[in-house]
Amino acid sequence: MSSWNNNNRYHSESSYAPSAPSLPDQHQQPQPHYSNNNNNNAPSNYHHAPPPPSSNYGSGYYGQVSSSSYSFPQGTNPDVIRTFQMFDRDQSGFVDDKELQQALSSAFHNFNIATIRFLIFLFKDPRQPLRIGPKEFSALWNCLGQWRGIFERYDKDRSGKIDPLELRDALYGIGYAVPGSVLQLLLSKYGDGSGRRVELGFDSFVECGMIIKGLTEKFKEKDTRRTGSAKLSYDEFMSMVIPFLVSYD
Amino acid sequence: MSSWNNNNRYHSESSYAPSAPSLPDQHQQPQPHYSNNNNNNAPSNYHHAPPPPSSNYGSGYYGQVSSSSYSFPQGTNPDVIRTFQMFDRDQSGFVDDKELQQALSSAFHNFNIATIRFLIFLFKDPRQPLRIGPKEFSALWNCLGQWRGIFERYDKDRSGKIDPLELRDALYGIGYAVPGSVLQLLLSKYGDGSGRRVELGFDSFVECGMIIKGLTEKFKEKDTRRTGSAKLSYDEFMSMVIPFLVSYD
Repeated sequence: MSSWNNNNRYHSESSYAPSAPSLPDQHQQPQPHYSNNNNNNAPSNYHHAPPPPSSNYGSGYYGQVSSSSYSFPQGTNPDVIRTFQMFDRDQSGFVDDKELQQALSSAFHNFNIATIRFLIFLFKDPRQPLRIGPKEFSALWNCLGQWRGIFERYDKDRSGKIDPLELRDALYGIGYAVPGSVLQLLLSKYGDGSGRRVELGFDSFVECGMIIKGLTEKFKEKDTRRTGSAKLSYDEFMSMVIPFLVSYD
Repeated sequence: MSSWNNNNRYHSESSYAPSAPSLPDQHQQPQPHYSNNNNNNAPSNYHHAPPPPSSNYGSGYYGQVSSSSYSFPQGTNPDVIRTFQMFDRDQSGFVDDKELQQALSSAFHNFNIATIRFLIFLFKDPRQPLRIGPKEFSALWNCLGQWRGIFERYDKDRSGKIDPLELRDALYGIGYAVPGSVLQLLLSKYGDGSGRRVELGFDSFVECGMIIKGLTEKFKEKDTRRTGSAKLSYDEFMSMVIPFLVSYD
């Protein structure tokens, strides 16, 4: 039984996850208030005022089909342009998965290739093969910058790792009140498989954040009345989910 | 717009995917009949008589929570027991991801570790960490045997690869009439990312098959009236989907 349906507070616009995380410097960080049902692990019980949506968060399946032109958006940080040009070794105007892995590792964190392919799928022009052009590269770069700010804000003990409670608070801080059971299921995918407490590095944190954000946004598109429920056809359901499955190749 | 909703034939029990693929020797293989709307790439337009469901297909999220006892089901092939014992090197009564990778590679195909972790998640006792006991090992072994039979049946040119049309026919043959758009989306996750025509080896074929089967079964649990649509809460949706996301670690 869904906790949404157990909690009338969740049948309101303001208590639903917002359409996108805001930029770190725009974050509202409400102190979580718990309900009186002693289910303190369920973020669904938060009273939650979501932050304002961000407009420049990703592309591709996020709705905006961006064309991979060879130009960067106006005002793109010159370092981003230089990095793209440095790693677009064949001057194709695109970076493929391996080039992107090197580019992001130089500036952010060492991402494994499966994660890189996942990021490309989230940001690429759907008409393109597994590669991104300047616009998508710039959007991805900005997005990772936002996630890095969020990571640093919620890694309170500066351990370079986010623990499950910090992850829950980080997602909540950007407007995603994710039920504890859902987070637990997601986190069971990480770690060494021993069942020991999971701590997420930046790369896994970004994956978790993008999975929660992306799936929630997809669901919201179908839950137009913000009831916490949506009627989906089989085709819609499959088409919503499959983009979040990585290639196992 | 979902092709289910465009096609009244799909508002019937018999045209929905069955609850599980049958054993290869039980397969009905109806010849696809296309509707007259010239949408010949859409399996949703098949008239489809699903085969009878199989009862011994997997465990874990398939609904039956199987306990990891140290005993094999009665009638387990001695080769399966020997293989389990051979790769359970620490005699723990369980095989972990790396042990399973070696065991399956010795008998079926070289699966990459992400695929192995995915298979474990599908079959393991949810109360267990990332490892499986004799019962789950036996169920997984039987399941892979079924998929191998299906693979060999539909790899008509004996190329050792399944092309997109062969995949569509294979899924249809075991009762999953998957819309072409959904298969195309799934296949875009495979291959070298160049956008060239994808051909699936046995490991990718098993992944695709289990993703389609698993997600379809999950959806069907919510579509009790077999209308091709289901009302899902946010929590239900997230909990249905997350098990199909692999760990990127």
